[in-house]
Amino acid sequence: MSLIPPSENSSVRLLAPDEASITAPLGWSAGAVVAGIKTYGESPRFDLGLLVSDRPCTLGAVFTRNKVCGAPVTVSREVLQRGTARAIVCNSGCSNVAMGERGVADAREMARLAGAHAGVDAESVIVGSTGVIGRPLPMQKIRDGMSELKLSADSGAEFSRSIMTTDTVPKTRAAQFSYAGKTYTVAGTAKGSGMSHPDMATVFCFLTTDAKLSGNWLQGELKRVADVSVNMVDVDMDTSTSDMMLVLANGAQGGPDLSQDPAASKLVREAMERVSIALAKDLARDGEGAKTLIEVRVTGAATHEEARAAARTVVSSPLVKTMVTGRDANLGRVLMALGRSGAALELEKLCVWLNEHQAFRLGEPTELPIEQISKEMARDTVRLSADLGLGAGSATAWGCDLTEEYVRINADYTT
Amino acid sequence: MSLIPPSENSSVRLLAPDEASITAPLGWSAGAVVAGIKTYGESPRFDLGLLVSDRPCTLGAVFTRNKVCGAPVTVSREVLQRGTARAIVCNSGCSNVAMGERGVADAREMARLAGAHAGVDAESVIVGSTGVIGRPLPMQKIRDGMSELKLSADSGAEFSRSIMTTDTVPKTRAAQFSYAGKTYTVAGTAKGSGMSHPDMATVFCFLTTDAKLSGNWLQGELKRVADVSVNMVDVDMDTSTSDMMLVLANGAQGGPDLSQDPAASKLVREAMERVSIALAKDLARDGEGAKTLIEVRVTGAATHEEARAAARTVVSSPLVKTMVTGRDANLGRVLMALGRSGAALELEKLCVWLNEHQAFRLGEPTELPIEQISKEMARDTVRLSADLGLGAGSATAWGCDLTEEYVRINADYTT
Repeated sequence: MSLIPPSENSSVRLLAPDEASITAPLGWSAGAVVAGIKTYGESPRFDLGLLVSDRPCTLGAVFTRNKVCGAPVTVSREVLQRGTARAIVCNSGCSNVAMGERGVADAREMARLAGAHAGVDAESVIVGSTGVIGRPLPMQKIRDGMSELKLSADSGAEFSRSIMTTDTVPKTRAAQFSYAGKTYTVAGTAKGSGMSHPDMATVFCFLTTDAKLSGNWLQGELKRVADVSVNMVDVDMDTSTSDMMLVLANGAQGGPDLSQDPAASKLVREAMERVSIALAKDLARDGEGAKTLIEVRVTGAATHEEARAAARTVVSSPLVKTMVTGRDANLGRVLMALGRSGAALELEKLCVWLNEHQAFRLGEPTELPIEQISKEMARDTVRLSADLGLGAGSATAWGCDLTEEYVRINADYTT
Repeated sequence: MSLIPPSENSSVRLLAPDEASITAPLGWSAGAVVAGIKTYGESPRFDLGLLVSDRPCTLGAVFTRNKVCGAPVTVSREVLQRGTARAIVCNSGCSNVAMGERGVADAREMARLAGAHAGVDAESVIVGSTGVIGRPLPMQKIRDGMSELKLSADSGAEFSRSIMTTDTVPKTRAAQFSYAGKTYTVAGTAKGSGMSHPDMATVFCFLTTDAKLSGNWLQGELKRVADVSVNMVDVDMDTSTSDMMLVLANGAQGGPDLSQDPAASKLVREAMERVSIALAKDLARDGEGAKTLIEVRVTGAATHEEARAAARTVVSSPLVKTMVTGRDANLGRVLMALGRSGAALELEKLCVWLNEHQAFRLGEPTELPIEQISKEMARDTVRLSADLGLGAGSATAWGCDLTEEYVRINADYTT
């Protein structure tokens, strides 16, 4: 459950932003078009995207646990059960949720259209839709758009744009490592307006790699990686009706199944984790209306689960968020959030830090340099840390401040 | 668990606002002063209040379940354990939370000062403090303020003002009923900026009555009443560090112990419930920055607990709140909140209404008069209803819209 620290001598390296693309691993191509599904916003934007592997992939997937789940989730679960994927087709602007049997039929048609266009079996196509709930998917626009879509290894950025809803920037990260004479790449792209959304900001997080890996291993690792990355962005992935995190491995780099080799699988795990955590922070930083990334680290909890609950409760508290908005070094709001998180807590064992300043020590508040902390809070990132002094449980969560802009976005926009 | 519907032929009647005061029952007096503890805001405001009964009271009390709880809660729990109360002393501006042993000593001194001033045993004085966490109570201001405080049966309104923090209006309600030739009064006052606060808006809700009632009966009834009133305002009372709901019965009207009489105790219960629900709606309506009261009614849940969870999840969802802010008839946000509430849900059995308009019928969205609903949402109250079609569980929750004003209040104000 614990975070792998980015060790200095690790042979896994994150690529520079301009090298990071979801098509960076071998054998991947992508494309996107303006199909006219995403009608809000000022200008026409990519809203239909397709990502294709030149050969069959093993895969891992985790889906929303919301009881109202989208038709695309139903269809994509079937791909996971079959165990082989070739492509992901996505649209933004309409989530195809709560549309009954028509919704499932539309999602299946979307997979068929994508499969026919890419020359792959429709049953190997994962479908992701994000946007307004309770409206039918405009199938004619999807048919027309698909016919114009061009696939290329250079179009990863367009695909990343096509899954955006209220995101202000596309999110894409990649890492590489070398093993037994070969260089493997793990890439990822994500969408979702992060922590400001405790309930419906659909999160998509897709990972691709050219390593050969077993489906069972991918599924186990993906769950673990999700729990220390996107699931720690504000409130977790189980809340939207369409959330989906995927990893697809096509083995195009050649070499043996790395999941069978302890040393190699450790490198893959680290690459997946670093890409996913970088994307999680990107999601939090791009929270709707957000100006500041909030990183909450909890240590000394009785269990890892309690550490996770405590970190997530603090990072998602509206009063903690607005305290950062207001640049207010407010220990009380952090204590209150810890106290209601459900984690075991004894004040006389608790220490709290605002950035690097200790604010609470074993039951007593300290004298804080309020003005200095207030100035520090104007920076890009604010760190809040708590040591509960009870055990070995630890976790990190990411979120963002809550601004008037958030309210404007969500009051004006039909999601 | 279910709400008693306000029956037309009930002999319990809510008093008009100008007659409702926490000192409306016989034998109660109150007073408040500007002690200078509440330093934020423009003008000096009452911040130290005292409510006294002319004779000993039985009592019921429910306190915050936050693990970081205030010293006043510790001291007040002891009064509940002893079983007799005479007075409530309150201050706003400083919550006396997370102050270690000093905090408990200060809360005890506050009880002693109030007891000496009112001529009652300090061990019968309940203490309530609300405001900033992690700062010492300014005891000299409390000593000075207490010496100037005057008690009167006409000063209930001042007491209600002294417990306000970011509340914009004092909240006070009262009900009367007649039984066996006597007229009994139940009054209540509350503070808390309602639903916009999922975590720290301290809620105080104090009920007084001149009926004679056993402490055991009061304690049991108060828990039940809290669960259908203040605990259904957004997220519940268990979250702040200082929350407290109390009922004090002094028997000043004379007559027998009404809790021993089924017909009479039913009237007391109804009066307590109607006063508390009216106060709960007042709290929600005065949520920080709020313009609209949101009432969420869930029926047909598998259990009452699941109905409560579903109603509270919908009413506290930021996306539901901002949908009301934006006057957007957005079925999707309601479905999403129901889906993540933890309540059992089957789409094909679910019906949802926005105000009186059915928006979802047994698995399928309906055609909605979007423009008309949008106009209706500009009214004082928006009603959202869901019938889950699974069982007999029902619950009602209250909240408010989320506005840019909320962010301004909480970014600018140190709570």
